[in-house]
Amino acid sequence: LPVRSREIHLTRYPAGPVSERHFTLAMVDVPRPQHGEVLVRNTFTSVDPALRIRMAPLAPAGYFPAFPLHQALDGIMTVGVVVDSRTARFAVGDAVWHRFGWREYAIVRADDAGLGGLGALTRLDTARAPVQAYLGPLGGMGLTAWAGLFEIAGLRDGDIVWVSAAAGAVGSLAAQFAKLRGHRVIGSAGSDTKVRYLREELRLDAAFSHRAAPIAAQLAAAAPNGIDVYFDNVGGDHLEVALGALRPGGRVALCGAISEYERPGHGAGPHNLFSAIANELTLRGFRGSSHVRLLEPMQEQVSAWLGSGALHYRESITEGLEHAPRALVAMLGGETLGKTLVRIAE
Amino acid sequence: LPVRSREIHLTRYPAGPVSERHFTLAMVDVPRPQHGEVLVRNTFTSVDPALRIRMAPLAPAGYFPAFPLHQALDGIMTVGVVVDSRTARFAVGDAVWHRFGWREYAIVRADDAGLGGLGALTRLDTARAPVQAYLGPLGGMGLTAWAGLFEIAGLRDGDIVWVSAAAGAVGSLAAQFAKLRGHRVIGSAGSDTKVRYLREELRLDAAFSHRAAPIAAQLAAAAPNGIDVYFDNVGGDHLEVALGALRPGGRVALCGAISEYERPGHGAGPHNLFSAIANELTLRGFRGSSHVRLLEPMQEQVSAWLGSGALHYRESITEGLEHAPRALVAMLGGETLGKTLVRIAE
Repeated sequence: LPVRSREIHLTRYPAGPVSERHFTLAMVDVPRPQHGEVLVRNTFTSVDPALRIRMAPLAPAGYFPAFPLHQALDGIMTVGVVVDSRTARFAVGDAVWHRFGWREYAIVRADDAGLGGLGALTRLDTARAPVQAYLGPLGGMGLTAWAGLFEIAGLRDGDIVWVSAAAGAVGSLAAQFAKLRGHRVIGSAGSDTKVRYLREELRLDAAFSHRAAPIAAQLAAAAPNGIDVYFDNVGGDHLEVALGALRPGGRVALCGAISEYERPGHGAGPHNLFSAIANELTLRGFRGSSHVRLLEPMQEQVSAWLGSGALHYRESITEGLEHAPRALVAMLGGETLGKTLVRIAE
Repeated sequence: LPVRSREIHLTRYPAGPVSERHFTLAMVDVPRPQHGEVLVRNTFTSVDPALRIRMAPLAPAGYFPAFPLHQALDGIMTVGVVVDSRTARFAVGDAVWHRFGWREYAIVRADDAGLGGLGALTRLDTARAPVQAYLGPLGGMGLTAWAGLFEIAGLRDGDIVWVSAAAGAVGSLAAQFAKLRGHRVIGSAGSDTKVRYLREELRLDAAFSHRAAPIAAQLAAAAPNGIDVYFDNVGGDHLEVALGALRPGGRVALCGAISEYERPGHGAGPHNLFSAIANELTLRGFRGSSHVRLLEPMQEQVSAWLGSGALHYRESITEGLEHAPRALVAMLGGETLGKTLVRIAE
């Protein structure tokens, strides 16, 4: 008998801010796995800012394609348990990750290539950390923070680092990775609660809310002599301020631009890009999934930091698949702290 | 007796486009050189787009400082002949370059450090090329093109390259260097005359005028599958088009932004910077003078290319120091081809 499974579909593309009205909960029959496939009961699914980019009829050229309407959303990282297997590579009971999230059950090919290098069906070591950590510090979030800092920004001894959206899933890791490597780290976020978290729990050297006062003045107070690396999760005015604060030879890891995802059309770019010539700056865009060869060294170091208590992380967990759209809206609105997750099943 | 020398001073900072009204020709007494100094009779002096950046009370932070008013303009590359020497390192009759241009005579310390690494007092080999070539392909222009392509953009086999302002001093060299290394090269410029020069003399694979039709459409016609490297001398709308045309992993050498130097205030930045994330692009600002260690290998290769006739270059020479401001205005207005020079003396 097929398994009955609920899944979230996008029913239309939002013109402005996304809301729960743009989604529906569908009930589908999931067939038994074919040869070479497994059936996974999903337990936690991921809610990422980048999903919003794909909820537009024309996703930016070069990016992952737009989500089609009235279909399951492929390309969302998820963890779960194998409940049926027709491949020797995975057994019933295996904890795995894959890219078929926002649904209760998924059929996954054992040789699925994943999305952009990440999310191939993979067995997870749940002795190392709770399974949902593989959607956070031990997964794409950790990989993105790691690649952005060490590969893209080429972090060097003595660099002063600013991380925006530093209370978010990637930002909180990037800020802590830099701290753990001995750097002076400034974090910014969008609320006083988050700023307290950055100061008191993550122990960053300085933290400010971009809503409290002009960003440039707050950054200058935290880094009077400028910064060397900016880990950009926000884009827009934040990037413009960074261009004005970066010292000669400074580097920007362009990771995300959450300030722009909900805008109809496009925001203007930074007016001060000439500063990149004047100060010989490098701006480099990247996606963590392109650096999957760094996954193992990252996981090794990060599980050690987690084990020793040196690395903190928070989750904002929404209960129930049907509330995944609400979790997305809350995250884009700045209401969540750390990694935003939806718990689908125990 | 001191030498009487004419020199150009800036008398006020232009609010909009610069004109001859912003300059004056002053007559000064140049003393005899002191111990460790030489007296140089300047023969050719350079006219660069970047000079315009310094003709503002607040030059961009990190850039060379603003030119002070009512003084000789220090930091402009110039060639000349030593006519008096009080150092064993230089003899009367030596052809040299230094950084004290826009004047007839200059006192230069033998150990002058130059400006940002380039322009230290240096003896020139005039058997290799006419002396003014050291203000062009064998000097800062060659170095900037070389560093931008090979170091900053990291040119790789098979890359398709777009060079803007490709009929200019740096652009014409960058475009030809890439051609001589076997790349498909598209050049753009601001007039039909220049486009003919790019096609017929430089033999680029494609060329277009940014005034003839929308840039994006013309670039797409020349490079239907996109580009890998953009050598940016123009900024503004050109950079925005490049961001839309660069393939995954593409690179931008941010060399200049001549479209923006005459604007009061700043132009808006590219609206599509998100493309840098989507396509994992690198934008890197630089100045040739920071790569002076590449000067010798560049000169060796470029003089070989010049000697074999493989490399073409043009000069737009204005006669007479008093007309240097006019030459600058003409160059910024797009009226000059190749390297813009002023001949001060034979």
